[in-house]
Amino acid sequence: MRTSRDIRTANRYGVLRQIIASSPTSRQELAAATGLSLATVATLVGELLDLGMITEVGFEESAGGRPRDLVAVHASGGALVGVDIAETYVHVELFDLALNVLARAEEDVRPGENRPERLVGHVAAAVGSVVAQAGSGAARVLGVGVSMPGQVDRGTGVSEYAPNWDHWHDVPLRDLLAEHIAYPLHLDNPLRACAVAELWFGAARGRTDAVVVNLGTGVGAGLVLGGGVHRGVSNSAGEWGHTTLVLDGRPCHCGNHGCVETYVGAPGIMRHLRELSPGSALLHPDDQTATVNALARGVAAGDPVAVQVVRDTARYLAAGIADLVNLLNPEVVVLSSWVAATLGEPLLAGVREAVARHALRRPLTATEIVLSPIPTDPVCLGAATFALEGALGSAGQRTAAVRRPGAPARSRTAPPE
Amino acid sequence: MRTSRDIRTANRYGVLRQIIASSPTSRQELAAATGLSLATVATLVGELLDLGMITEVGFEESAGGRPRDLVAVHASGGALVGVDIAETYVHVELFDLALNVLARAEEDVRPGENRPERLVGHVAAAVGSVVAQAGSGAARVLGVGVSMPGQVDRGTGVSEYAPNWDHWHDVPLRDLLAEHIAYPLHLDNPLRACAVAELWFGAARGRTDAVVVNLGTGVGAGLVLGGGVHRGVSNSAGEWGHTTLVLDGRPCHCGNHGCVETYVGAPGIMRHLRELSPGSALLHPDDQTATVNALARGVAAGDPVAVQVVRDTARYLAAGIADLVNLLNPEVVVLSSWVAATLGEPLLAGVREAVARHALRRPLTATEIVLSPIPTDPVCLGAATFALEGALGSAGQRTAAVRRPGAPARSRTAPPE
Repeated sequence: MRTSRDIRTANRYGVLRQIIASSPTSRQELAAATGLSLATVATLVGELLDLGMITEVGFEESAGGRPRDLVAVHASGGALVGVDIAETYVHVELFDLALNVLARAEEDVRPGENRPERLVGHVAAAVGSVVAQAGSGAARVLGVGVSMPGQVDRGTGVSEYAPNWDHWHDVPLRDLLAEHIAYPLHLDNPLRACAVAELWFGAARGRTDAVVVNLGTGVGAGLVLGGGVHRGVSNSAGEWGHTTLVLDGRPCHCGNHGCVETYVGAPGIMRHLRELSPGSALLHPDDQTATVNALARGVAAGDPVAVQVVRDTARYLAAGIADLVNLLNPEVVVLSSWVAATLGEPLLAGVREAVARHALRRPLTATEIVLSPIPTDPVCLGAATFALEGALGSAGQRTAAVRRPGAPARSRTAPPE
Repeated sequence: MRTSRDIRTANRYGVLRQIIASSPTSRQELAAATGLSLATVATLVGELLDLGMITEVGFEESAGGRPRDLVAVHASGGALVGVDIAETYVHVELFDLALNVLARAEEDVRPGENRPERLVGHVAAAVGSVVAQAGSGAARVLGVGVSMPGQVDRGTGVSEYAPNWDHWHDVPLRDLLAEHIAYPLHLDNPLRACAVAELWFGAARGRTDAVVVNLGTGVGAGLVLGGGVHRGVSNSAGEWGHTTLVLDGRPCHCGNHGCVETYVGAPGIMRHLRELSPGSALLHPDDQTATVNALARGVAAGDPVAVQVVRDTARYLAAGIADLVNLLNPEVVVLSSWVAATLGEPLLAGVREAVARHALRRPLTATEIVLSPIPTDPVCLGAATFALEGALGSAGQRTAAVRRPGAPARSRTAPPE
């Protein structure tokens, strides 16, 4: 069961999330939006003020009562860095506390370069670049969140397995990065990054149960259940890409057959295109991005092969999404990552139509299926959110230590729930 | 996000669950076992004492400190009724607060009888029977939990859809039952009943994330996530029986094809037996129970057809369970309900072996697969637990009203978390 400390941390997340979403806002509005008592909200707001993450910004008249103090996120109260490590690039962004992007850096990773020392060098260079771009006037960096594909042990910071890199096992990535990066480091994987990004800033905000389907080279589903990210007992929940869609179907690199990923991941989509039309001009044999871009342009132009490939992909995807709808009964299924963003509305329309044929009526009625509304790289944003959650998670203990110079200690009006 | 009230209710469940598991116990042990503060435990224990659900039973010496007061579940402090409605029977049990069975009743339901009025008559008769058996000296009945197959709206008490009964739609079952039964009624479905039974009294006790796979005529998975039952946004989570195992496979009554249920539900197992050995003496064409019993005896006797059917069933089941392991990363998968109980260890051994071939290494390592340890009908036990949870859920408001005669009001030493 959840301990008092888990609950306090979750409530701290909830209040800051709501402040970011609706700045400026009052304690009364926050209590109404979160379902927490006014006393609890007042305590949590006090902590966030002490941390310098939010500020008082005046007051509004309230009907018939005394004026209500307003608070807003303090954008320059700290900076967060998000790192998206992918098979072919390292993408890094620096954000303010309102999660605006202040600086970006990207490093290419060539196939021969994915050895731990080389990768760490790319990450360190890009993080150094965004901090330098932000300049000496920028706010203190509160932490660096790192999204690493595959299985990650959050506690130890070990990257246990990267599905598309051979000979990558049990790499102590956080320790290696810490030799170059002095800020607190928070390691997790892209499924969880996309899930927290949607939960804090996207289509899952305010939802209790949501599934963020991640469509790229690899495929997975970040799960938001009961208002928080579901990680499972060993932080590996969400491996929907490795659930069976076709028993004894296509072989998968995981050792199983017929996995969802072999049909709807970018390589699976390319395979389908190759089988349907071997000499198609849409096919760029060694370039997933170019092929998926060509398919998107082909659909827009009415190319029958492109239309067929996207329709069939939507149908595979829909069968797998119907499984998620029937099993988890979420409020929303969000299609995220670059394949979903590139194929866009035609893919979404095909998925919606086919899910309706596969899913049970009751959960289907309760579920929306949408494209991610996040305009930037959701993995970077989510990784930065890991750093924000990390800073908040230890805030209870750190409140005194990091109090803004001159800020008064706030009295605790109620014990946080 | 979870409100203060949700959290208070979940904590009240957690403390009573722990007291039932380890009576007699002290507040200090309860705090250690639940992760709650001693002050919160003391408050919740006070509430449970006021409700008459637990009693003080002396004290134990503590090393170097003052003696610790002990509490235990007050078995005769109330009675709970669990109702298991199935396709062919209504099974009702009356429990004391330690969840010992005090009385049982069963009514057969013939195919023509599954009209709402007839079914309600059977339930009312069986509930009347167990209350009469328990006698006038028995404790007050705190509530009646009812498990109804299919989709149930817990809030309105409407049985929306029963998968194996034609013409059964949107039946206001709770209201119909309330015309005959004066106790508080709590309606939900067998997936949730088996999940709460395992969570309170079985293999999921003390676990944060567990999946209870229900193998009967219908198939589903009760989900325990984050320490509580995951219901989804419209209380229909867990429809794992209607996830795709074989795209375009066997037609399913849900309208989809290739659903898990069509391969591992009792009718699916019979179909496989018929295809493998059309004239088999193991096959009882119109009797699922007799056929599954014959298969179990056949495996024990080394009958090659029976061995093959159970092995193939285990393999289908394992592919579906590997999906749950990869997606949810649970600590334990519990095989429950009558098909699992009847096929027992040979099925379990086959499942364990085949899951290891289908699942990813990391979540697999973290997961145990076990048969349900609950010796009685888990659906009745779980339904009674709905009634217990219902009584506890409103206990905060009702504490004053139902205080035992003569019991002093307890001071609140801390607000409940």
